Amino acid sequence: MAYDDQNIFAKILRGELPAIKVYEDDQVLAFMDIMPQADGHTLVIPKSPAETLMDLDPKAATYTIQIVQKVAKAIEKALDAKGIVLMQLSGAAAGQTVPHVHFHLIPSSVHDLGKHAVQMGDQEKIKALAEKIKAAL
Amino acid sequence: MAYDDQNIFAKILRGELPAIKVYEDDQVLAFMDIMPQADGHTLVIPKSPAETLMDLDPKAATYTIQIVQKVAKAIEKALDAKGIVLMQLSGAAAGQTVPHVHFHLIPSSVHDLGKHAVQMGDQEKIKALAEKIKAAL
Repeated sequence: MAYDDQNIFAKILRGELPAIKVYEDDQVLAFMDIMPQADGHTLVIPKSPAETLMDLDPKAATYTIQIVQKVAKAIEKALDAKGIVLMQLSGAAAGQTVPHVHFHLIPSSVHDLGKHAVQMGDQEKIKALAEKIKAAL
Repeated sequence: MAYDDQNIFAKILRGELPAIKVYEDDQVLAFMDIMPQADGHTLVIPKSPAETLMDLDPKAATYTIQIVQKVAKAIEKALDAKGIVLMQLSGAAAGQTVPHVHFHLIPSSVHDLGKHAVQMGDQEKIKALAEKIKAAL
């Protein structure tokens, strides 16, 4: 599917919208989900434009999964997470809401996950969690 | 955590238990979840022994994600899936039931996913789905 460069993650990548970042390099950005399904809910996205996992360049996928691992370890350490759910939703039918491929890292039980949170989280609390994760990277 | 080589996926990898396979090479195995959360529910596992995503050798992770992509594309094509949920549960607290790292590919909506199905699926139906996916690889 044609990539929509007006999606909110594309805007975050261009610096047109703010994000609470925990990691960034030339290929990947990791930032806090501002509507978290659990404390420490972090998103990892490749910078290359792709809507779904199936669209993503395999080289970008192989790099991104390494950062997903790195951030997962940091969440585990920083938040003493007993378990982490990695989730990647491809397609609106699968529940994808932003059409830029993104990997959710949620320190939680999958059994606790319902619909994506519909309210904004406490931004100060989220920033504090981000600092803890960054410190553990 | 120490890897338990008596887990059921380790037994499948050693050929001690059967599996409905859709893809296999020297590093990765993809097979049908026999208690599917949706039709076409497939598991992709690295052959290297690791319990969680955090434990997995980064080289194994980078290879495995490429096969995850390959199988996701095949599921999309074979089953005309409108969306695919990729899920990887690390730790019993996250709902992981088999202590060998595994990536779920579920052609479904995340909103439909509840607890892991507690009943065996129709094995003949699952085999037929596996054939369709294999043909699309």
